[in-house]
Amino acid sequence: MPATAAETTAMHRALALALEGPRGVNPQVGAVILSHEGAVLAEGWHRGAGTPHAEVDALSTLAPGAAQGATAVVTLEPCNHTGRTGPCAEALIAAGIARVVYAVDDPGQESSGGAERLRDAGVDVISGVCATDGAALLHDWLTATNLGRPHVTVKWAQSLDGRAAAADGTSQWITGPEARHDVHRRRSAADAIVIGTGTLLADDPALTARDADGALLPHQPRPVIVGHRDVPPTAAVRRHPHPFVRFAGDDLVAMLSALHADGVQRVFVEGGPTLASTFVREGFADEVLAYIAPVLIGGPLTALTDLGVPTIAHQRRLSVIATHTLGDDLLVIARPHEIHTQGDI
Amino acid sequence: MPATAAETTAMHRALALALEGPRGVNPQVGAVILSHEGAVLAEGWHRGAGTPHAEVDALSTLAPGAAQGATAVVTLEPCNHTGRTGPCAEALIAAGIARVVYAVDDPGQESSGGAERLRDAGVDVISGVCATDGAALLHDWLTATNLGRPHVTVKWAQSLDGRAAAADGTSQWITGPEARHDVHRRRSAADAIVIGTGTLLADDPALTARDADGALLPHQPRPVIVGHRDVPPTAAVRRHPHPFVRFAGDDLVAMLSALHADGVQRVFVEGGPTLASTFVREGFADEVLAYIAPVLIGGPLTALTDLGVPTIAHQRRLSVIATHTLGDDLLVIARPHEIHTQGDI
Ligand SMILES: NC(=O)c1ccc[n+]([C@@H]2O[C@H](COP(=O)([O-])OP(=O)(O)OC[C@H]3O[C@@H](n4cnc5c(N)ncnc54)[C@H](OP(=O)(O)O)[C@@H]3O)[C@@H](O)[C@H]2O)c1
Ligand SMILES: NC(=O)c1ccc[n+]([C@@H]2O[C@H](COP(=O)([O-])OP(=O)(O)OC[C@H]3O[C@@H](n4cnc5c(N)ncnc54)[C@H](OP(=O)(O)O)[C@@H]3O)[C@@H](O)[C@H]2O)c1
Repeated sequence: MPATAAETTAMHRALALALEGPRGVNPQVGAVILSHEGAVLAEGWHRGAGTPHAEVDALSTLAPGAAQGATAVVTLEPCNHTGRTGPCAEALIAAGIARVVYAVDDPGQESSGGAERLRDAGVDVISGVCATDGAALLHDWLTATNLGRPHVTVKWAQSLDGRAAAADGTSQWITGPEARHDVHRRRSAADAIVIGTGTLLADDPALTARDADGALLPHQPRPVIVGHRDVPPTAAVRRHPHPFVRFAGDDLVAMLSALHADGVQRVFVEGGPTLASTFVREGFADEVLAYIAPVLIGGPLTALTDLGVPTIAHQRRLSVIATHTLGDDLLVIARPHEIHTQGDI
Repeated sequence: MPATAAETTAMHRALALALEGPRGVNPQVGAVILSHEGAVLAEGWHRGAGTPHAEVDALSTLAPGAAQGATAVVTLEPCNHTGRTGPCAEALIAAGIARVVYAVDDPGQESSGGAERLRDAGVDVISGVCATDGAALLHDWLTATNLGRPHVTVKWAQSLDGRAAAADGTSQWITGPEARHDVHRRRSAADAIVIGTGTLLADDPALTARDADGALLPHQPRPVIVGHRDVPPTAAVRRHPHPFVRFAGDDLVAMLSALHADGVQRVFVEGGPTLASTFVREGFADEVLAYIAPVLIGGPLTALTDLGVPTIAHQRRLSVIATHTLGDDLLVIARPHEIHTQGDI
């Protein structure tokens, strides 16, 4: 039997409940328990790593036996994995749940298989209900889970001819206010913002996401500094609402996995040229944002430096996802061609 | 009295006749002589420098006295200048023309003033009839006359990050077939195509304008080579339908005025990086065409080199006139900001 109207309504509620939980290492998940007649018996959501999963959270509010014959509506396939909490599939079976309706399959290697376990126990299982909304909710978490590291956006501003600054290093401002405002909006949608020590020492950036009036936006990404050189005692980043994260060294693989383990799903790399080029060269740029100002500068200070392209056959081909006009500037959003043609994530 | 219907019809005919004449140092001009009743008495056009102007060409087909009381419809203000031919204003007065209708004012310092001379002699003069069509016909000639040199378009192809080639110099092909086709179409609209000896020796280009099948387009720009180094005896440009023009040296001012004196109104500069940068640096790039491929290359071989921009305040600001998508590539058409804000030419 496909999902009933009551179950679809409950799924919308579960999607909203999921957002009560934090973005982090674990997915945001919501659950609603319905009686056989479609009445809401319980609600729950996942409050982050180490706490009960959404369906167990909901069950925990019910008296023993109250879920007998009931339906569990969950945004993510119940897990089949004994981690810090037991497998949800077993908990649902033990509670006497007769039917499970969920939105998105669990992509985890260890945690998936819950639907199969439930069916084996005679539970009626329906998947893919509000799957688009469910996938949208989990987009970043699914992406990071598939990549095994945070999703990386590399942003830079350049002149039409690819320069980041004039010969003497001056660059304020190549792009206009609309472009800078767009950058702040996108910063605010990231979990972390990464710069190299070169940019830290040259520009002393605040690394906050601000609105057009300079006021802090509600969500601030965690500032991350990578490089051997020290963060000066007076650095503006020390006044960021979040304490900055420091990676002393140049190991981007280690940095990305540490950030991932820390619950970072989206990283926004804001350079400068050396760091941006390393991300591109090492294949970690899942998306690039080139803000192009209608100016010509010439000279040595290119926005990207060496990408390890010895000959044209090795050029990094991109798929342009969108181009936007921002005031006088142009924003080109692109992804590596290979990833795009293999199907978007 | 404004232009009559017969005069407007005659102006359309005169605009068509103008195109019979060659593009060159002199403007393309057409003329029709109408009787007082609006019947066509004569037609004429300008066949190039040193030959009679259009209105005199038309009058020359009439018997003496036949133009008495007639109307001359001309695409350009009759000249007031004794050059290799006498002033047309005088010829019209002498022929007894009672009324002159024209489209576009003559911008020449020496040749203008014809309308005033005619009015002083009691001739009825109407200007601005089909002025938009007339200006469009003369656009390139007017532009070159105003600039005192040919209009210059500087074209280059680049990666998103502003590179012309990979580190080893390989670059075929950064842009795709649609972009290359667009280049050929625009080449064909130019009077001359200019490259430096660097590109000549590196690429041995044919410098022809070809269609998608490789066949020559009807109009071929004259190939122009600038630089001290010699054109090799086997160079492909020697097989161009037009003999190539050679400027041994690096004096762009002298080259542009020689081309202008030779009737060239539109120059298409196709590089390479050294020559393109010199045109931009010296302020001769009236229009730039940047064909941007969605690739990243990095490394030392930038599409523009040094533009003489020591500090950001001296960056060359452009006005983007249009952006076009050509297959996977992007074409940005831009003009120097100063020229644009002073009013388009
Ligand atoms: N156009 C733009 O969008 C834009 C954006 C930001 C900055 N900028 C400009 O860029 C300039 C700074 O350039 P930059 O290239 O020196 O800055 P950067 O890329 O921020 O910093 C480079 C430094 O990061 C450290 N680093 C850590 N891990 C690395 C790795 N895996 N690969 C490479 N480097 C690593 C190294 O310093 P250690 O020696 O300390 O390890 C390296 O020298 C400033 O003038 C700034 O204004 C422009
Ligand atoms: N990406 C593109 O759109 C594009 C287009 C064309 C070419 N290319 C590539 O560019 C490379 C050639 O680069 P290039 O920069 O050497 O070529 P170039 O700009 O065509 O030639 C430069 C040479 O032109 C001569 N020249 C004459 N007058 C000059 C002046 N006023 N200023 C500067 N130079 C003047 C000089 O040679 P003399 O010493 O002989 O005087 C100079 O070395 C080739 O690999 C080609 O494939 C790329």
